[in-house]
Amino acid sequence: LTSVTAVQPERSRPRLGQLIEAHHFDAVVAVSLENVYYASGVPIMTQRLIPSRLAFVVATPDDEASMVVCSIEVAQVHLESWIRDVRGYTEFADSPVAVLADLLREKGLARGRIGIETAALGHRYFAELESLLPEATIVDGDELFLRARSVKSSAEIALYEHAAAATNRSIRDVFSAARIGDTEIQLAERLEERVRVEGADGAAFTVLATGLNARLAHPSPGLVELSAGDVLRTDFGGYFGARYAGYMTDLARTAIVGEPTGAQSSTYQRLFEVHLSLLEALRPGVAACDIFELARRGFEKRDLPFRMPHVGHSIGLSIHEEPMLSPMTTAELQEGMVLAVEPITITDDGIFHVEDLVTITADGARILSSAHDWAELMSVG
Amino acid sequence: LTSVTAVQPERSRPRLGQLIEAHHFDAVVAVSLENVYYASGVPIMTQRLIPSRLAFVVATPDDEASMVVCSIEVAQVHLESWIRDVRGYTEFADSPVAVLADLLREKGLARGRIGIETAALGHRYFAELESLLPEATIVDGDELFLRARSVKSSAEIALYEHAAAATNRSIRDVFSAARIGDTEIQLAERLEERVRVEGADGAAFTVLATGLNARLAHPSPGLVELSAGDVLRTDFGGYFGARYAGYMTDLARTAIVGEPTGAQSSTYQRLFEVHLSLLEALRPGVAACDIFELARRGFEKRDLPFRMPHVGHSIGLSIHEEPMLSPMTTAELQEGMVLAVEPITITDDGIFHVEDLVTITADGARILSSAHDWAELMSVG
Repeated sequence: LTSVTAVQPERSRPRLGQLIEAHHFDAVVAVSLENVYYASGVPIMTQRLIPSRLAFVVATPDDEASMVVCSIEVAQVHLESWIRDVRGYTEFADSPVAVLADLLREKGLARGRIGIETAALGHRYFAELESLLPEATIVDGDELFLRARSVKSSAEIALYEHAAAATNRSIRDVFSAARIGDTEIQLAERLEERVRVEGADGAAFTVLATGLNARLAHPSPGLVELSAGDVLRTDFGGYFGARYAGYMTDLARTAIVGEPTGAQSSTYQRLFEVHLSLLEALRPGVAACDIFELARRGFEKRDLPFRMPHVGHSIGLSIHEEPMLSPMTTAELQEGMVLAVEPITITDDGIFHVEDLVTITADGARILSSAHDWAELMSVG
Repeated sequence: LTSVTAVQPERSRPRLGQLIEAHHFDAVVAVSLENVYYASGVPIMTQRLIPSRLAFVVATPDDEASMVVCSIEVAQVHLESWIRDVRGYTEFADSPVAVLADLLREKGLARGRIGIETAALGHRYFAELESLLPEATIVDGDELFLRARSVKSSAEIALYEHAAAATNRSIRDVFSAARIGDTEIQLAERLEERVRVEGADGAAFTVLATGLNARLAHPSPGLVELSAGDVLRTDFGGYFGARYAGYMTDLARTAIVGEPTGAQSSTYQRLFEVHLSLLEALRPGVAACDIFELARRGFEKRDLPFRMPHVGHSIGLSIHEEPMLSPMTTAELQEGMVLAVEPITITDDGIFHVEDLVTITADGARILSSAHDWAELMSVG
């Protein structure tokens, strides 16, 4: 068992402090599991399981941070987080938002400009906070976290070097061993078991689809069996670095059960050509929307149906991070980003989908997931 | 492989329609993964993975329902949901909230009284909806969904009969086979594999803790090894009925590695006595807070430290549902509820925790997870 759980990417988040200052906030408040983990280093499992058990990290420009968590989780925070100022609330008896408001007041921020995650924080809680701090200016702080997380540290990139290769090997091995008659569920479970053996802390999501399911974007694996001529597609990611709040991988691979037809091979080959052209175009300074446009033109030129709202995305603690490779995203790629590139085309046989992970270096994209091993349409079974 | 994925608990939700009428709403809007699944029958995996990819179900008193989802998921909804009116939005190009507002307007609800999930819906989206429907009365609808879900159908109870027993067997078998030197991660993975063999669609959460971790509520399984004299505790649940949005189980078991000391056995025995007294007290008409109070007195009488904010909870598509067995919950238990009862006490050796699943019948609680098999403190290794 190779475990990378010992990787502790950071002991603080200097990018966050710099951005708080640059954005002229007096404080920002992390709300979501991902941002609480990013800003504190502690993955609080119950944030996912029990949404009413709110947790907050309050970060200020001086890199001081405080935390509000359910009293049940305080011991774990003391053990695992670099934050020393931890306030517990008693579930049901105390309002977590009231404890947050007290903390902000204590920090002299009752009239401050406070950025908070307005997409993740339920309206009910936002309204409570506004009523408790009527003189504060409470605004959207999502973008600041997204910007902080969009450029990875060297420790985060090192984690992805391992994680992307491990995820790719897992898919390759499960596809290689797949046989006609295997069910989607069997293959999905082998994949999830295999990625843990390769060092993942768990599977984050598993699309493993064949037959009719291969025409859906995100079906659950079922009892459908591999059958000659069918498409077999996976879109799969693991958690690395923490079991419920780690860094996610996201790779997609398409194969044919038995020998591909000429039409299947041709579709895949054209899709893969576009894929390579996108990977080659990635470099610092290129606008994300230009990669999208390159894909659109590449599909058109090769007579492939193009219906994607995006052709890839940054990735990290969330599966889709900014920048998205979408027509609306004018942000430029930067060195240190980790991106998933994923052109997709839909045929009568099912969805053809390839997806690889790269990191952006000064010289262009470094591919982390052995894309070139998938240049030929794989035949399984 | 025993699979219960074929269980389709419902083809509609009559309780929801009745409650919409009783609460004098013109419509309610489901937002969370759990309520969207409850109100539509389709588990949309990306609701968990990609929170910005909003999905809504609009339900009205006449039991008509409409749905708004990302265009990527429309094909799955058509295949899996009983809802026929499905509106897709193009990610990034369209605002999902604007599509929802158009739908509500089309249904003649621009001046209606609309209940929406204000805890799950981010403030940003709520504010957008209010600005698009300035004449509507948009209020909190969470309680309506909680009430609808709190009483299970016979199909849901049948699912829990299987699921609770399967989860209990999985823990029993993994504990029985555990050996000194096994790590938390090894045991956690065996448990997760085993529950799938027993018919779960996946593990929902896994606390598997020994040594120092046994003192934390929700640590991630690590490389800690089983060592004689240590507490081994699990708090574990699987998904049944759907892979990312199914019904969850939640059982806790405590054992000792090697022979328990007299003090350990005594603590466990007293805890278990309280546990049995709670199980015996459950019946229709009893207030949830009275069960909490019974636990408090039972702990006090037996000289056990009592620090729980609750001693159990209803369970279903969410791990904690209403009623909570908390001091604040005056709601009465009803026939058809499924509850987890979980007294906990904290000792110097770690947390002692037992948790069983029951369904409330006219005659009292029917135990679904073989609680009595755990009356003696188990010795493992």
